Amino acid sequence: MVDKHFYNAKENVTLAQIAEVTSAVLTDMAKAGETIRDIATMTSAGAEDICFFYDRKSREKAAALKAKACVTTEDLKQFVPEGVAVLVCEDPKIAFIKLNEFMYAEKKAAAGIDGSAKIAASAKIGTGCSIGANVVIGENVEIGNNCVIEPNVVIAQGCKIGNNCRIGNNASIAYSIIGNNCYIYTGARIGQDGFGFQLINGQHHRIPQLGRVIIGNDVEVGANTCIDRGALDDTVIGDGTRIDNLVQIAHNDKLGRGCIIVSQVGIAGSCTLGDYVVLGGQVGLADHLNIGSGAQVAAQSGAMRDIEAGAVVMGTPCVPFKDYMRQVSFLQKNSKK
Amino acid sequence: MVDKHFYNAKENVTLAQIAEVTSAVLTDMAKAGETIRDIATMTSAGAEDICFFYDRKSREKAAALKAKACVTTEDLKQFVPEGVAVLVCEDPKIAFIKLNEFMYAEKKAAAGIDGSAKIAASAKIGTGCSIGANVVIGENVEIGNNCVIEPNVVIAQGCKIGNNCRIGNNASIAYSIIGNNCYIYTGARIGQDGFGFQLINGQHHRIPQLGRVIIGNDVEVGANTCIDRGALDDTVIGDGTRIDNLVQIAHNDKLGRGCIIVSQVGIAGSCTLGDYVVLGGQVGLADHLNIGSGAQVAAQSGAMRDIEAGAVVMGTPCVPFKDYMRQVSFLQKNSKK
Amino acid sequence: MVDKHFYNAKENVTLAQIAEVTSAVLTDMAKAGETIRDIATMTSAGAEDICFFYDRKSREKAAALKAKACVTTEDLKQFVPEGVAVLVCEDPKIAFIKLNEFMYAEKKAAAGIDGSAKIAASAKIGTGCSIGANVVIGENVEIGNNCVIEPNVVIAQGCKIGNNCRIGNNASIAYSIIGNNCYIYTGARIGQDGFGFQLINGQHHRIPQLGRVIIGNDVEVGANTCIDRGALDDTVIGDGTRIDNLVQIAHNDKLGRGCIIVSQVGIAGSCTLGDYVVLGGQVGLADHLNIGSGAQVAAQSGAMRDIEAGAVVMGTPCVPFKDYMRQVSFLQKNSKK
Repeated sequence: MVDKHFYNAKENVTLAQIAEVTSAVLTDMAKAGETIRDIATMTSAGAEDICFFYDRKSREKAAALKAKACVTTEDLKQFVPEGVAVLVCEDPKIAFIKLNEFMYAEKKAAAGIDGSAKIAASAKIGTGCSIGANVVIGENVEIGNNCVIEPNVVIAQGCKIGNNCRIGNNASIAYSIIGNNCYIYTGARIGQDGFGFQLINGQHHRIPQLGRVIIGNDVEVGANTCIDRGALDDTVIGDGTRIDNLVQIAHNDKLGRGCIIVSQVGIAGSCTLGDYVVLGGQVGLADHLNIGSGAQVAAQSGAMRDIEAGAVVMGTPCVPFKDYMRQVSFLQKNSKK
Repeated sequence: MVDKHFYNAKENVTLAQIAEVTSAVLTDMAKAGETIRDIATMTSAGAEDICFFYDRKSREKAAALKAKACVTTEDLKQFVPEGVAVLVCEDPKIAFIKLNEFMYAEKKAAAGIDGSAKIAASAKIGTGCSIGANVVIGENVEIGNNCVIEPNVVIAQGCKIGNNCRIGNNASIAYSIIGNNCYIYTGARIGQDGFGFQLINGQHHRIPQLGRVIIGNDVEVGANTCIDRGALDDTVIGDGTRIDNLVQIAHNDKLGRGCIIVSQVGIAGSCTLGDYVVLGGQVGLADHLNIGSGAQVAAQSGAMRDIEAGAVVMGTPCVPFKDYMRQVSFLQKNSKK
Repeated sequence: MVDKHFYNAKENVTLAQIAEVTSAVLTDMAKAGETIRDIATMTSAGAEDICFFYDRKSREKAAALKAKACVTTEDLKQFVPEGVAVLVCEDPKIAFIKLNEFMYAEKKAAAGIDGSAKIAASAKIGTGCSIGANVVIGENVEIGNNCVIEPNVVIAQGCKIGNNCRIGNNASIAYSIIGNNCYIYTGARIGQDGFGFQLINGQHHRIPQLGRVIIGNDVEVGANTCIDRGALDDTVIGDGTRIDNLVQIAHNDKLGRGCIIVSQVGIAGSCTLGDYVVLGGQVGLADHLNIGSGAQVAAQSGAMRDIEAGAVVMGTPCVPFKDYMRQVSFLQKNSKK
């Protein structure tokens, strides 16, 4: 059950309201006025709750449902026991998102600038922003409207941030231009120097890093993730790309739109990813690779060469997924002899 | 030698005192009044120091000891040269911990609330707490007694923290309920949204994350480690579990008691770990796995399936440890032909 | 093109000046007075820019150059089209660094102590330092001259930092002695307890961690990287070693001089690395290993045994690079049968 200590919740929401919000059809209109208490999982839903059933594999859980109501598909509704109110829609996952957004709202920081924030005189802050305690904003920074900058964030000179962005507490942003509707999580480090050295007479000399980080719209950057700025070119993150926690993105990387970069991935410098690339957890990419649009790299894999668009690969160095599985079973069989 | 610049140290500690503190027997009572200067390793211990000898493999180091005294077992004392005072106990590792705690104490932050801390009026702070500079504590937060909240920590609205906890500087805590005697290290991120998206018409829509993070008693969470809150259920960390630095724990994970999670492990969403599970460094677990109690996963391994209680596994995908070693030697032999 | 919003830039720099700064010879002295606008890559350089050509593989790019000038070697200058001014030098990579340092300067924080910084009365701060907002500096800390301590940094009691160091914002430093000319990046965690436990009656008891972190001169520690302090001995980082982002260095590790530790590497406790060791991204080292000077471990590899000086290894457990590649091709061939 959602903990009302943490989340605001609408009360007395009726099945009729839910049908409307989720574009679903309530199969028994006699129940339209019944109210639900909470959204829950199929296994935890009690007699006052609603749950969502969208996967044929969960048929057994469906048979044992104790919920008051269940949102599902035309195809799956047959598995819901009698007595449970059924709402039929095309995609219960979308319905789930819509109902959550309707019923619960995060408790948002109020607009206003905390007195302890240090904002350079030349910085421009849009309307409706919340600037938290101990925030430091450098010279010539520009922040759009309705942004939430949480406590202890440091935004260095010259950065631009669009509208409706949220910067989690204790994050660091430098040399960056960030679009609209982005969410940078707590502790993310964006815009520090890339890792580039030249060995001269036995000493590593830093290669000056003079680029920027350019982040599109609707991007998420996870907690404690690091994105280095470019050396001469920029590091670029395309619109709608989602980056999980503890990811490393090196200088000059260029990620396309809608990519999913799972936790602890490391992308070495100057890689180019197309659109909708998926990198599983702990994947590593060597430098200067091209990863085609729609390619999927399984967790823990390592790429040393380019990957074609749409390919599904695994292993270090990675090979087509089926080849990897064949190698695994070959090894298992033959090593036992 | 312990640097007195950093650590408080008791001086003139006698071997009699040490015997008492460590539940050891001093074999030569004539030496009971002799004092030691410091605790040291077997190789670095000088004529005024005491060291600990608990592993038969260190017999050669024992033969070359220059220490004033050595704590060891009945079985190993034969390897200690004459002239070194011997204290015999059952487990020198435990004795080591006890003597350290007796001789040295970390310099603790004094109780009190720094004037620059921002504490919401509705928050409750127990007695004997130290709240550092620039700490931000949100509405309705409850903190128990004798806690140390180091500088620049942000604790968001509604969180509860038990007694005797320490929160390292620059850490972020949200949507969390934390037990007693926990140590959250610097830069840890606890309670941010899990990584959940639904692709709708070519755009990733965030799935609302409405759960919490529930942390038991005696838990450690390492520096810069991330623990995401649950989606509908909670993310749960059991009593006595120890989590190293830079670990990723995703939404809805449930870890049992006494688990050891080594640095840079990544646990995908909705995994369940039993008690005393050990995950070596950089291990990755795919989502929705069950890892039985006492299972041990070797460093860098990747699990794609459930692991039985007590199993010891290695590789990606992981197999029983012996099988992995057989695969390794098979490959080494046959690839050279 | 370098964004003047973020970087200061000298204007009207002549080719004669560039030749002097880079120790290069301008082949056509008639062009000595021509000015360049910017430093750019071979592909992005326009008619007012200078670029650097140092790799035979880039011959095709050279043929298509649109730059005003190009710095290259005696050997490669033949591939530069007529009309592009050529500057010949021994090592264009060094020339690139020198010209960047000449033409662009990072906008540095002005010296001075922000009024919101909390500095213990017993701390000593050298001359010319910049201490940012909300910095917390503990008792008996000593900081040398010309250091930049960015906002929200916490330096715990007793630490010493040399001259000309930069500590990135939101970093945490404790139990550490740091040399000159070091750059600790944002969010780095240095000096926290190592991960050491002893299981006693079913409970993990923390083994006291009483050592320090000793960092030499000219060291870089990347963003969100963690370096634990020693248990009894110290954790040591040698002069000139460069550590990337999100790296884990455990208690008692001793790294030599000039090592390169790439992002997301994890080094377990009590390892010793010689000089100029290179660990590729996501490498893992088991505890108590000796890695000889000049050894190179390929990305994602895992070492369970010592590695000889100069060895080049790959795989988990790692083997000589050539053996690994032979294993890979053996598997690919034989698994397809």
